[in-house]
Amino acid sequence: MLRSSRDGKLAEMGAGTVHDASLGKEIVRRINELAAISEESDKLTRIYLSKELRAAADLILGWMREAGMSAHLDAIGNVCGRYEGERPGAPCLMLGSHYDTVRDAGKWDGPLGVITAISCVAELNRRGKRLPFAIEVVGFADEEGVRFASTLLGSRAVAGTFDESVLNTRDRDGVSMRDALVQFGLDPDHIGAAARARRELLAYLELHIEQGPVLEAQNLPVGVVTAIAGATRLAARLTGMAGHAGTVPMALRRDALAGAAECIGAIEQFCRTDEDGLVGTVGYIQARPGATNVIPGEVSFTIDMRAPSDMHRKRAVADVVRQIEAIAKRRQLALQLDVTHENRTAPCAPWLKDQIAQAIGAEGFGVFELPSGAGHDGMAMIDIADVGMIFVRCRGGISHHPDEDVELADADAGARVLLGVIENFRPRERSAGAG
Amino acid sequence: MLRSSRDGKLAEMGAGTVHDASLGKEIVRRINELAAISEESDKLTRIYLSKELRAAADLILGWMREAGMSAHLDAIGNVCGRYEGERPGAPCLMLGSHYDTVRDAGKWDGPLGVITAISCVAELNRRGKRLPFAIEVVGFADEEGVRFASTLLGSRAVAGTFDESVLNTRDRDGVSMRDALVQFGLDPDHIGAAARARRELLAYLELHIEQGPVLEAQNLPVGVVTAIAGATRLAARLTGMAGHAGTVPMALRRDALAGAAECIGAIEQFCRTDEDGLVGTVGYIQARPGATNVIPGEVSFTIDMRAPSDMHRKRAVADVVRQIEAIAKRRQLALQLDVTHENRTAPCAPWLKDQIAQAIGAEGFGVFELPSGAGHDGMAMIDIADVGMIFVRCRGGISHHPDEDVELADADAGARVLLGVIENFRPRERSAGAG
Repeated sequence: MLRSSRDGKLAEMGAGTVHDASLGKEIVRRINELAAISEESDKLTRIYLSKELRAAADLILGWMREAGMSAHLDAIGNVCGRYEGERPGAPCLMLGSHYDTVRDAGKWDGPLGVITAISCVAELNRRGKRLPFAIEVVGFADEEGVRFASTLLGSRAVAGTFDESVLNTRDRDGVSMRDALVQFGLDPDHIGAAARARRELLAYLELHIEQGPVLEAQNLPVGVVTAIAGATRLAARLTGMAGHAGTVPMALRRDALAGAAECIGAIEQFCRTDEDGLVGTVGYIQARPGATNVIPGEVSFTIDMRAPSDMHRKRAVADVVRQIEAIAKRRQLALQLDVTHENRTAPCAPWLKDQIAQAIGAEGFGVFELPSGAGHDGMAMIDIADVGMIFVRCRGGISHHPDEDVELADADAGARVLLGVIENFRPRERSAGAG
Repeated sequence: MLRSSRDGKLAEMGAGTVHDASLGKEIVRRINELAAISEESDKLTRIYLSKELRAAADLILGWMREAGMSAHLDAIGNVCGRYEGERPGAPCLMLGSHYDTVRDAGKWDGPLGVITAISCVAELNRRGKRLPFAIEVVGFADEEGVRFASTLLGSRAVAGTFDESVLNTRDRDGVSMRDALVQFGLDPDHIGAAARARRELLAYLELHIEQGPVLEAQNLPVGVVTAIAGATRLAARLTGMAGHAGTVPMALRRDALAGAAECIGAIEQFCRTDEDGLVGTVGYIQARPGATNVIPGEVSFTIDMRAPSDMHRKRAVADVVRQIEAIAKRRQLALQLDVTHENRTAPCAPWLKDQIAQAIGAEGFGVFELPSGAGHDGMAMIDIADVGMIFVRCRGGISHHPDEDVELADADAGARVLLGVIENFRPRERSAGAG
């Protein structure tokens, strides 16, 4: 139904500038061209500061210049393009995403946002159109954090929050980030030069695949992100008593796996009954000794909890911890429970959500808001700019997997929405009166 | 209390033949002597047809001869001793257990039964006492099945049910059982010679550590085994849909681990509410892909179910399977469920249980019946003889572990009970009228 309404609108527009999915076709072609640059011949892997990342940077810098931008590699390896506004040196609307990948990745996660932004600028440039503000496009060099076990290195450098101690961490081959930067052609002592000031940015806007199944379930090509959900990760260990599976009666058991199973059920039940986007996942479990005929004496498992607000998540974590403690106590299991990771929520700015919603509506699509459960560069950029995000539907919610896919029509829809936001963009000061 | 009553009884007996735990002391000394024969210097490992098993066999054969028995190694490596009765060539009461171990074993599992039987015969021999039947003691060469992944090789050979195809299986070093037999000094083509006929045996009686915590919880040194529980093992695999832990709402998940957790809870609950010795264990679990931030798409786990009767176990397995199927269906998880192992129950003969109970009572202990959840050589011997078993308390129910332990007083109590059974033994025919 929504598709029909969109097609109807296209027909009304006739042979306009965005007819025939021309943006979408260019985007898909470039997605494939970029995906061909991989460390492995049979799968896509492009990690931070690899020579393949350098080749990808050069390709993207070329596209930026072709789109009428000045372009350079910054001090941490981000590709940065600038399309001046009506007055040179004006503050910019910054568009970005990342161009590194996980190992054995899909080709859309990250590159779609970078390539779409460039295509939008190219479209403006083709029309000779300048705006009252500059547009900058950034392809962040490390969002996934595969190589140095610290995520968002590219956007943290731009936000001025890069942690210098990461320079000493080593990859699995023993190469330090410092040495890798030098090999890449960058100066580790000048990372500070990548930092931008708040006054230079009007907003940070990112287009990204959803990496989840919600838009598909809603039958919508795009969505407005409400917040990048914070996450708390915990490591739990339950210790009971191992024993022979045949000789210990049920009533005398202290079975660590039966206890863990009860915890997993409690976490699922607790999150299921929440109606505001709370999710909880036990992704890893190990039972020791792990033999068919031995009662598990010790079980380790992880818990990942996310919610669209920090208060909501923290309250949920506290509730789940209380439940796990009660289960362990009742079953006479020793419990060790540690928070291993905590990320605060990055809410999207209401004024940017409004402008994105208007652009989506203008393209004839239903407006649907959803939180991002996955982390994104906006989590770092929020330190120097208001953040907005557009999600593009992906097939089956699959991501971080070679099967990750986006339909050409959806890539095109995302580009037209982003272009709509750019063309109608009103900085915060001016939008205040518009209510 | 029970200990006091026993001590009281000992006092009444005065300086009798079993005063001062002399049997127990001999047994513990020999347990330690045998435990020193190991393939590994810092732990006890003595697997089938190793040169250490051969050294252990020679030590045991020496003890048998010292106790007044004729002794030999049979065609499969069992140590066999015979103490003639009043008339040479009479049918025998066969006492046995095994002298192989698991890897990193405790020293009591198996050897206690062999050594105690020899000590009982030695005691009769010291007194110059012959009985109306012969006594044979067998130390089975392979009960644990560590080396050739097939258990009860020693007792199956004696029962005439040895599966010749096992001769071609190879250990982890690639040595076939056939070659290992030759290296041990045995002829693989003569294993049939180890088989005994039903008419040669009046009964098979085994003393063994409990390997569970029940006697300790009952504060009793010994117990009467009702049956060696049959076991069914199943391998389950649940397949749902992997996904990002942050991006897939709870309602759209097909989380294989949450499904497995519900199954584990159902198995535990089902077995807990059973009042007749049913036990169910999930000892192994693996979630894939197994990352903190990924919803598990596939989980494999094992189920081990045991009960004192085959009908009880089979009905329970069917019920549990139905529950798992219902859970998988409701959660839209694909289920693969296979029976990987099935052992029938070996019930202990009531007339032997009665005689064991009488011997326990005669020593002043409370009579307590319990099933054996672990497998024993009686499972094979039941094909040619009625089977009885005496359990001896072990510390904390710990077995198959270096911490496995039996108190000297309990080893002595077990020996006195076994000696009582032997001295008062009435073969089935004669006991029929007494029932």
